[in-house]
Amino acid sequence: MLNFEFVSPTRFIFGRDAEKALVDQAKTLGTKILLHYGGGSIKKSGLYDRVKTSLKEAGVDFTELGGVKPNPALSTVREGIELCRAEGVTGILAVGGGSVIDSGKGIAVGVPYEGDVWDFYTRKAVIEQALPIGVILTLPAAGSEGSDGSVVTDMDTQSKFDCGSDLIRPKFALLNPELSYTLPPYQTAVGAVDMISHVMERYFTNTEAVDVTDRLCESVIRSVIKAAPKALADPEDYEARAAIMWAGTIAHNNILGVGREHDWASHNIEHELSAQYDVAHGAGLAVVFPAWMTYVHETNIQRFVQFAVRVWDVDYTAGEEKAAALEAILRHKEFYRSLGMPTSLKELGITDDRYDIMAEKATRNGSLGGFRKLDKNDVIAIYKLAAKG
Amino acid sequence: MLNFEFVSPTRFIFGRDAEKALVDQAKTLGTKILLHYGGGSIKKSGLYDRVKTSLKEAGVDFTELGGVKPNPALSTVREGIELCRAEGVTGILAVGGGSVIDSGKGIAVGVPYEGDVWDFYTRKAVIEQALPIGVILTLPAAGSEGSDGSVVTDMDTQSKFDCGSDLIRPKFALLNPELSYTLPPYQTAVGAVDMISHVMERYFTNTEAVDVTDRLCESVIRSVIKAAPKALADPEDYEARAAIMWAGTIAHNNILGVGREHDWASHNIEHELSAQYDVAHGAGLAVVFPAWMTYVHETNIQRFVQFAVRVWDVDYTAGEEKAAALEAILRHKEFYRSLGMPTSLKELGITDDRYDIMAEKATRNGSLGGFRKLDKNDVIAIYKLAAKG
Repeated sequence: MLNFEFVSPTRFIFGRDAEKALVDQAKTLGTKILLHYGGGSIKKSGLYDRVKTSLKEAGVDFTELGGVKPNPALSTVREGIELCRAEGVTGILAVGGGSVIDSGKGIAVGVPYEGDVWDFYTRKAVIEQALPIGVILTLPAAGSEGSDGSVVTDMDTQSKFDCGSDLIRPKFALLNPELSYTLPPYQTAVGAVDMISHVMERYFTNTEAVDVTDRLCESVIRSVIKAAPKALADPEDYEARAAIMWAGTIAHNNILGVGREHDWASHNIEHELSAQYDVAHGAGLAVVFPAWMTYVHETNIQRFVQFAVRVWDVDYTAGEEKAAALEAILRHKEFYRSLGMPTSLKELGITDDRYDIMAEKATRNGSLGGFRKLDKNDVIAIYKLAAKG
Repeated sequence: MLNFEFVSPTRFIFGRDAEKALVDQAKTLGTKILLHYGGGSIKKSGLYDRVKTSLKEAGVDFTELGGVKPNPALSTVREGIELCRAEGVTGILAVGGGSVIDSGKGIAVGVPYEGDVWDFYTRKAVIEQALPIGVILTLPAAGSEGSDGSVVTDMDTQSKFDCGSDLIRPKFALLNPELSYTLPPYQTAVGAVDMISHVMERYFTNTEAVDVTDRLCESVIRSVIKAAPKALADPEDYEARAAIMWAGTIAHNNILGVGREHDWASHNIEHELSAQYDVAHGAGLAVVFPAWMTYVHETNIQRFVQFAVRVWDVDYTAGEEKAAALEAILRHKEFYRSLGMPTSLKELGITDDRYDIMAEKATRNGSLGGFRKLDKNDVIAIYKLAAKG
């Protein structure tokens, strides 16, 4: 196990009517809140009105900025920063999924910073201050409600970058599984893939003696494998929605990832797909992750055997490590397919004409991956493996 | 899954030399620290001197109170409160295991309270303020370094009570597995039993649809089962000590217990043993928990079957639920025995002359247990089952 530091100070309020706790929690965001959200879904569902009512009841002033898109745009973050400065905003309330939260985190770090917020994402500056942020989650997937990260896309340069700091962990996250009832099947599946991927980026490691976190990782993956089909079969299955929502949160607040090297190559490889083609992150991961596993499984075959046996109940035979690993990858891919996810670039309508530029961009800061170092040619090879799935 | 609220704001700094972070962390305890510790072991090991050096380097003033005993005494807590008031202490640094931390938490809530600190333990008052507390852990067992609870014993009335509040979760916990190298085998085993028990008190529930936390619980129990014998075989096995230390922390900060009813009968039944006979808490639990399992397994046999299959790899045969449950209890007991733990009251030298008074005290506030309600007669029956193990 590696040395680590871990703090997750977010107050998680979970369950039916969790959003009502906003009345009490709003004060942690100061006296003037930016209500940040996406498209019209929270207006259609009535959540928008309930949030406004709670903010009024809490006696805090607020302004608002909606319209955040999936793969949230740097331009929206900059717009939010200007608005917050002009209005004297003291804290951000993000109502939505990972895109809204990540956009809100970008605003939160940008407001007190004198330079351009993009500096944090390009590693030109380190986060030293941030406005407090609170969350009402409607789309369990990205885990941003408990995480220390934010991912934002500069549409002009098609660059999707992340930044991170414990300072942007939300003060509170209100998690009501019922708010995810209206998610369409595709979004539900994309969310499940995203959270499983967050665990797998931590799981595939060469760090030795990580039994405690290994088992926690395997647990969360298995729970999502169990719950996701239930939520697809019955969108109002509270227990399935609840399992998914909480699994998605702990999949990414890093309780599963302490003391071990992570990988994160698949995320970076996928980010280029999202940036180039505006693919849903989870759908891109459903394609990229199995291709990555296929490409790297021989790097540490024993870890793949453990994954096969413990996560996919593969009937391991001594000496047949490779067969076990490939069987697990096959089952993993079939599971994604059963959720209605694409498992090839072809299904996403992506052809080979941008592999080179995507691989170039993905490796612009050097090689990718903690489990296996990948250079540009490796990334191209993974796109090729992903082509037909 | 039940609705829940969960916050674990403790900064966990884990690994070799973790205690060196005290220089940075001390300031979270204010300007004048109470250095709180147990017997002479931290002086013998040199930790005491290193802590003092770090506090000086941090530039904070401190006073000290050592001598905390296992099953920490209310009298020591009261002494600490008076000392802190007299010296204007602003925060508590507990260096030791659960007893020292729990004693420190008692002092932390007592200092700003006008009444008698015992009011919090007897539920006559609710904690509304506490001095900040920090921890350097030397004995992984109680999980108090990340928990919201404190257990203290009033020696005059032989009453062992607890109190809890998020306000007494430590600000920081410095976790260096090497500091546990010098623990004798008995203490190591007692710690393992204690942390497994913390998980099992959460695991045995009738709350339905708790798959996520079920699996997390099973994971941590399995990890301790794997690591504890390694630490006994080689006290300086860093990885085994590290697995135990982190497992003990997450076993009790409640990340494993959210959204489900807990049991806690076994803890209460054991507390009476500790109060009457000054038995080590973990040793008492090694005796009481298997007896409790034997007594209650028919209450929810399916949960015991899951425990048998997932934790003890029992080869379940349809229709043989009871056999699977009993086999799991047997294996669990054998495991404790393999660690050198007692599994009967007889081995602890306890005879039947105080069953009635202990059962009376254990149920003084009503029935025990979330999994199965137990009255005084049930508790006596469990002591009887525990008698010969």
